[in-house]
Parts: sequence; structure tokens; C-alpha cells
Amino acid sequence: MSEELSKKALKKAAREEKKAAQKAAMAAERAMAAPSSNYIPPVLSLDEYRTLPFGDAPLHMSQDEFCLLRNLTGIDKSLTHLVGQMLWVRARVHTARIGGKNAFLLLRGKMRLLQACYFVPRGGDEADVQRGKDLVKYIGSLSQETIVEVYGKLTAVETPIKTASKEHQSYELHIERVHAISRAAVPLPLQIEDASRPDSAYENAKEDEQYVRPGRDTRLDNRVLDLRTPTNQAIMRVRATVASEFRAFLDTNGFIEIQTPKLIPGASEGGAAVFNVKYFNRDACLAQSPQLYKQMCIAAGMQRVYEVGPVFRAENSHTHRHLCEFTGLDLEMEIHETYHEVLKLLGAMMRHIFTRVSERCATEIETIRHQFDLSCPAPLKWADETVIIDFREGIKLLRERGFEQASEDGDLTTELERELGRIVRERYETDFYILDKFPMSARPFYTMPSPKDPMFSNSYDMFIRGEEICSGAQRVHCPELLRQQCIAKGVNPDTLEDYIASFRYGCSPHGGAGLGLERIVMLLLGVEDCRQCCLFPRTPERLTP
Amino acid sequence: MSEELSKKALKKAAREEKKAAQKAAMAAERAMAAPSSNYIPPVLSLDEYRTLPFGDAPLHMSQDEFCLLRNLTGIDKSLTHLVGQMLWVRARVHTARIGGKNAFLLLRGKMRLLQACYFVPRGGDEADVQRGKDLVKYIGSLSQETIVEVYGKLTAVETPIKTASKEHQSYELHIERVHAISRAAVPLPLQIEDASRPDSAYENAKEDEQYVRPGRDTRLDNRVLDLRTPTNQAIMRVRATVASEFRAFLDTNGFIEIQTPKLIPGASEGGAAVFNVKYFNRDACLAQSPQLYKQMCIAAGMQRVYEVGPVFRAENSHTHRHLCEFTGLDLEMEIHETYHEVLKLLGAMMRHIFTRVSERCATEIETIRHQFDLSCPAPLKWADETVIIDFREGIKLLRERGFEQASEDGDLTTELERELGRIVRERYETDFYILDKFPMSARPFYTMPSPKDPMFSNSYDMFIRGEEICSGAQRVHCPELLRQQCIAKGVNPDTLEDYIASFRYGCSPHGGAGLGLERIVMLLLGVEDCRQCCLFPRTPERLTP
Repeated sequence: MSEELSKKALKKAAREEKKAAQKAAMAAERAMAAPSSNYIPPVLSLDEYRTLPFGDAPLHMSQDEFCLLRNLTGIDKSLTHLVGQMLWVRARVHTARIGGKNAFLLLRGKMRLLQACYFVPRGGDEADVQRGKDLVKYIGSLSQETIVEVYGKLTAVETPIKTASKEHQSYELHIERVHAISRAAVPLPLQIEDASRPDSAYENAKEDEQYVRPGRDTRLDNRVLDLRTPTNQAIMRVRATVASEFRAFLDTNGFIEIQTPKLIPGASEGGAAVFNVKYFNRDACLAQSPQLYKQMCIAAGMQRVYEVGPVFRAENSHTHRHLCEFTGLDLEMEIHETYHEVLKLLGAMMRHIFTRVSERCATEIETIRHQFDLSCPAPLKWADETVIIDFREGIKLLRERGFEQASEDGDLTTELERELGRIVRERYETDFYILDKFPMSARPFYTMPSPKDPMFSNSYDMFIRGEEICSGAQRVHCPELLRQQCIAKGVNPDTLEDYIASFRYGCSPHGGAGLGLERIVMLLLGVEDCRQCCLFPRTPERLTP
Repeated sequence: MSEELSKKALKKAAREEKKAAQKAAMAAERAMAAPSSNYIPPVLSLDEYRTLPFGDAPLHMSQDEFCLLRNLTGIDKSLTHLVGQMLWVRARVHTARIGGKNAFLLLRGKMRLLQACYFVPRGGDEADVQRGKDLVKYIGSLSQETIVEVYGKLTAVETPIKTASKEHQSYELHIERVHAISRAAVPLPLQIEDASRPDSAYENAKEDEQYVRPGRDTRLDNRVLDLRTPTNQAIMRVRATVASEFRAFLDTNGFIEIQTPKLIPGASEGGAAVFNVKYFNRDACLAQSPQLYKQMCIAAGMQRVYEVGPVFRAENSHTHRHLCEFTGLDLEMEIHETYHEVLKLLGAMMRHIFTRVSERCATEIETIRHQFDLSCPAPLKWADETVIIDFREGIKLLRERGFEQASEDGDLTTELERELGRIVRERYETDFYILDKFPMSARPFYTMPSPKDPMFSNSYDMFIRGEEICSGAQRVHCPELLRQQCIAKGVNPDTLEDYIASFRYGCSPHGGAGLGLERIVMLLLGVEDCRQCCLFPRTPERLTP
């Protein structure tokens, strides 16, 4: 019996041990969320900071101006080649966990996590032990998001550290010195952990896991914190890459970069949806696009121009794809025989962007898809030849599917655009295509009518995943026709005198396009909202931060 | 005696021939200035345009959409390899000169002139001769700046054609067909010839040469024409190259490109000199710089960021170096030990820009220096190591030269800046240097004070030819100090709440700089005025075109 008893006792002990381990884990979780004590250590003097093993650094004022003492090591790339070396690392405290005699710091760079740790010496000099305990206490005082400097030996480990990033799982930093450089206030209005959690973690959460999912406004109100998530860092890198590849493609195709004025006189192209500005004693407004000025550059003989710049729209729209200020990618070019030269270039440009972004940003895309693992659509598909569909053909396709409301007389609704996107994807296996020859009624006054049927026009939209990312057209380069079309569209041509006058002294036939950077990034990545693809978005209700 | 007589007669005849030649040249000059008749030919039908040798083309509406019939040849590069071939060229009429039986067209691309000519057949079919005469008449009707299409054989010539550009002097285009694509109205408000004439042509003009020198307002009022001069085309290319090399350098140095909002809440960094905007129901203003937002990106963990974008200043300044809207080249970066890391990077960046621009834009710089042959200073000189001068040292240098008004307590006047530029050039053989450690009183609230003397600061300006092109500093990354400095500078910290709050949750020490693109281009090229380096300049009195 005693054997049985002892077996029972062993089982019980095992259960209790497991419980205790769970408790400890939960305590550790709690410790991650807040500094483990209210203890805030005093700020060191400069001399102390230079010599003591721990303590808050004095305000960094470039005191060591002419003596570069240390080589700080970045942690955004693998450090395997540095194992065994002493390193100075400056990074954020992602989490700080302490026990009685040990401390673990998870350090975060831009997108990567590295573990640093400290163990109080066992036995030995009592003063040393006390100093070790003080160091642990100091590490415990480090709030999340605090910037710290850590000095230690990068040491290989046998069991991979799962909390660290993939690149950093085979080693950890053994802390010898640690200093807070810039302390984060407590509590954080937004936990980076919460803002980074994958869709599936919420979906698969067990009953006792109460994850907070920060709402969009909480995120945007605290955008500086929100932007620190690996996903947002990745989105901003993809964004920069799209702009950079837009320019690279056009640079190699004979374009010249321009910057056109954003402050323009009284009336802009549309009239409505414009922000008004007081310009000294005059009324001005913010350009709704570089349209007029990029065309004036063509009239000025610049042949092929592009611009990357802000575009302002005072539209009271509240959708996932509208912003009051966004980054426009604009281009305008002389055409030889046909505006289809522009379409050909646009198609090649988008393929270039898609290809280069998928090459240059593979890690970033992986990071983003990891967080949006349930909400992301399949990766973008595109055809080797640009699919160009005539507007009337598009309407036909929709009607064949039973969308009787689709009509050749006006623009497509957002819903029909999406539907057509689906049909095109099925037929041509592409998420990207161009819809050509829109009805004249749906286009602005500067659009060249179709030579065959004045009800239609030499104009086009580009779509990704059924959403518009670009409008373009051949433009009217004849001042008389331009005036006529202004009047027909209810725009007073006198308010556009400088623009119309530019075509009076000879202008080559030309066409172009205006793309929205945020929309491209949103649709390329398959994220939900334009606002996620913009540093500090502006919408009718949001002007801050 | 008869021999003598005949000699006299010969001399007289030679004189008369010379006079006649002069007259003919003057007539040709007149012909260049205006079309030689009021005859305006009718517009051809599409079929006529496709078959007839001359006549105005119908409005280009991409009629030949799906049949790319012709390969239009650009004339901005040497065509030597095409001599003997039939070409279609589309270009502007720089000048059209006709005699009874011949016609000369000087065709202009972006920056190059190519001669095209036609001779009425001698003898032969009378109908052919008449058609030839009609073609000459048609060419005579082509006003300057009209866009034409010319078809002909590119034919080598023995005597170089001096009126053509260097690249095109060894051949001419023998016209077989010519069509106006877009006619320029007559008269031009600004002659491209006048706007392109070198300084020295005015200086050395003989009494009978009455050259018109267009004033700055005439040029800017007709900027679309003004921009067509080879010099202005060249300036815009240099400008694009500076921006492109700024980005290239920073891309390879671990920076990421950002676009920060231009519409920002109520108060901006300064308070004065700001353009106000009505943002739906709120008051907003246009960002005077990306200062606050690029720092917020550092607080958001982006480590190194840059932006190329518009900057708005409502300053009522009327100098050669002020614009109300200009293109800012901004950067911000984390620093390790000292803000001198920023200076080091800035120096290397400027050298990179100078070197690459002089390599990539050699022809453009030559074109510009050709026109401003008397007003341009010597080409830019720069040192291999950035010259950095302490502000107090600068004051000392000025005082040694007798500029007693130079003081350590405040900013430098424009005049003293220029003077110091001269001293530095003499001493260090460089037009580019950095002045370091400005008095705190001369710098904005976000500037980090000097750790050794709070009267001074960790801030600097960059100068080219004695004029400021850039301001920068280590920034205050501590929210409490930032508040204090706001109050000390008379800025209400509550209006900057979002900005200050970004430093509350940990921020790395950082510094940066803001450069003005137009100023760099102006000073690099040595042209007189910022307005020449901007497509459509905005000044207090100019909001158009």
C-alpha cells in the first residue's frame, strides 16, 4: 500500500508542481505588463554613468562629443558572428522579468527581439551578491518601452529562446552593465503586445485568456506607440519601397522628377472638396492633385514628368479608402500615336513595383501576414501582360453575371468595381487590371473624348483586388476645346486662365495618371484600411496627432 | 587704268554683296521673330493628314490607337548613327525661315536644336514645283513654338550648321512632309531666344543690336514659356538630381523615407509665419517643416528617417533666397554618443551630392554657365573633410577682420554670414562648411543645450558660398525639459501636446537637419535667385501661375 500511497503522493506533487509552474508563468505575465516595483532609482552623474554597472544615465546631451567610446551594436540583424564578444546594445525594453536572483530583459530593435539576462552570483563575496541583487532590482524597475543601454557578453545557448525573434534564438546577452537612457511613463496607453497580436490569437483564445484588442481610435490616438509594432514598421518599409520603385522605374524611362506648388489660386480643378487657405491678402487653396501643374510642365517642354507629393481632399468621406491628405504618385508624359502608350508604361511600372516589393520586402510581408493571418487575402497575383478591359466590355461582363444595374452611361459603384474585380480574377488570374474608355460623363473636363464616340473618353482606371488605385487619361491639349469642356462641366474657365493659357503656345499631345500610395500599399498587402498605410492619417474627424 | 577701275568696281561689288548679305541676314532675323505671313492653312482631315505632304494635323485624339505606325525620333541626343535614314521627328519650331524657293526650320527638343530644310525642285514637273512652293509657304506659316511633325532624310552636311546644337551640326533633316500638331499663338509674350541669351551677349552688344532682356516678372508670369529655355530645363534637371542623390545617399545609410502630414493642428512650431487652413469645423495650419513629425517617427522607433516634401512659410520676405513654399530635404536620426555623428553624415552627404551632380549633370551645368557666363561665380569648391567651425571661433575670425558687430550672443546677419564664408574659403579652400554650436538664444525650443554652457547649443548650420542652406541640431528628447524650453521661448506647450507626449514613452537621443532644395541648387550652380530653381515659385506677391 505504501507504494500505492507514494505513487498517489507523487502524482499529487506533480499536479501541484504543474499548478505552481502555471502560477509562476502567470506571475511572469503580470510582471511583463508593469514594472515589478514602484522603485525608481536616482539618476547617475556623468562620472557614475561612465563607471557604475547600473543606474539611469544622465540626460544625453552629447557630453562625450569628441571621444566615440563605444560601438553600439544594432539588433535588427542576426548577431551570430558576434557570439563570444562583449557588446554595447541600445534598444527598448520589450519586457523585463525578475525573480529573486535573476532577471530577463527582452530587448526590441525596430522589428527584432533579443534576450538579455542576469544571474546573481552564487556564494562568493557578500558585497558582490548584494550588488547583484541591486542590479536585479534595477532591472525590475525598467518599465516597458524604456530605452536602455546594455553591456554584456553575447553567449550561445543550447535550447532556442522562443520569446526572442527567429534570428536571435541561439544566443543571449549576459548583462554586465545596464542603464536607462530614456524612461517610458507608466502605464502605457497602448500595449505593443496587444497591438501586435495575430488575428488567430484572438480567434483561438482560451476562456482564461482575456486578450485586449485595441480599437482603431486607441491605436491612432497613440500612433507613436502603435507605429512601434513590427507590423507597422514593416508597412512603413513597404510604403517607402513602393515610392522608391515608382521613382526608379520612371527614372530609367526618361522621366524627370518635379515638385509642383500645393498653394494654388482660388479655384482648383474640381471646386468642391477643397481646403481654403488665406494667402497674405488673397484666397488660395490646397491642390487637390498636381494635375494642372504637371500638364503645365508638359507644355513647358519637359516631355515626361513625375511627382511624389501630398494631395489634399476636403471630402467628408468616412471609408476605409479615403484620406483627407494622402501621398500622390503622379506622372504625365507626351504621347506619340496613342494614349495606350501610357497604359503600356503603367502596366510595366506596376509589374515592376509588385516584383521589386515582393523581392525587397519579403520579410516585411511575412511579418504583416503573420499578424493579419486570418484577415489577409491571398498574396497578390498579376499577369505578365497587362489585362486591359474596355469599359463597355466590363459592363457586359457584369450584366452577364446578373448585375443589371451596371450601365454604360455612368461610373461604376464601389460594389460593382469589386464584383468586376472578382470576374476578372477568375478569367485572367490577375488581381491587377486596367479598365479603359470610361464614359465622358464620369470624367473631369480635361479628359480627351474618344475619337469614335464623344460619349466615351480616352481615360482609364487601374484596379487592384477590385479597388481603384489610379485614374488617368489622355488630356485635352487644345485650349479652345478645353474651354468648351470646362463650360460643359460647369467649371468657370476664367478661374483656370493660367492653366488654359499654357496650351496656347504649342503643347504636345499627352496623357498621364495619378496613383494613391496608401491605396496601393493597402491593396498590395491586403490590409484593411488606408489609415494603416499612412504615418499620421488625416480624416474629417482626425487632425491629430 | 581700266585695271584699276575694274579693281574699284570689284571692291564696290564686294561691299554691296556684303551689304546685301547683311540685309538678308536681318530679314532672316525678322522672319525668325514672326511667321512670314498671316496665312493660316486649313486643318486636314485624318485621311489627308495620313497621305498629304503638309498641312495642319487634326486634333490628336489617339485616332490611331491600335496601329503604331511611326517611330518618332527624339532629338535630344546625337543622331549621327541615323544619317542616311528616313525619320519622323516631333519637335518645336524654334525658328522658321523661308526664301522664295527654300525653307529652313530650326527644330527644338528639350535642350537641342536640329536643322530641317526644304528646297523647291528646280525645273521638272510644274505641278511638283507648285507643290514645292506651297510647302515653303506652309513652312512660312509655322509660328515659333508650334509643335510640328517632320518626315525626312537625315543627311550629312560638309559645313557644320552653326545655328544647330553642337551634337547636330554635321547633318540636317531634308523635309519630305511637315505637319503642325499644335500651333502656338502669335505673338509670344516672351521670346525663348531672349530668355536664353547669355549675359555676355548683352554686355558685348553692338549699337545696332537692340536685345530685349526679359524682366523677372515677365519670365515668371509666362513661366511655361520661360521654362522652355535650355538653361531652365537644365536647372530643373540639376534640381531633380540633387533630390535623387539626397535619397540615394540616405537609402544606402539605413534611412527610411517618410511622408509626414502637412495639415497640422492649430499651432505649428513657430506660431508666426504660418498659413491657416479651415479643416472642416476646425482650425488647422500648414506645416512649416516636418520637424515635429520626423521627431515623432524617431519616437516611434524608426531610427533614421528622411523626407522630401513641401514646406510652407508665410513670411513676408522679399529676398533672393525666400520662398513661401519650397521643397524641404529633411532628415532625422538616432545618435549614439554625440550629435557630431549627424554632422559627419551631413558632410559626407553633401560631398556625395556635389560629386554626383557634377558627374551626372556636366552638360546641364555647362548650359547654365554658358547663359550666366558673366554672373556665375567660379564652380563650387569643397574640401575632402568637412570643415566644421565653432560659432565662437567664427565670431573671432570675423572680429579679427574688423567686423566688430559680430557677437557671441546672437545670430549672424546675412552680411556677416557671407563675410565668414569668404574668410573660410580663403583659409580652407571650400565653399561648403558647417558652423557649429550656435547660441541658444538663436535657436528654437526643441534644441538641445550644450552640456558645457547652456548659453550655447548642440546646433549647427550648413553654408554654401556663405549662405545658409540647412539648420540642424540635437533635439531635446526629454518631455520635461521640452516643456521648460517651450515656456522659456514663449511657446505654449499645451498647443504641442501630441508632440511632447511622443517623448513620454521612451525616445532615443537624436538629431537631424532640414535643407532647402532650391537654395542648394541656387548656390551649387551659382545662379542669382531661388525662384529660378523652382518650377512655379510662390512669394508673398506671387500665387500664379
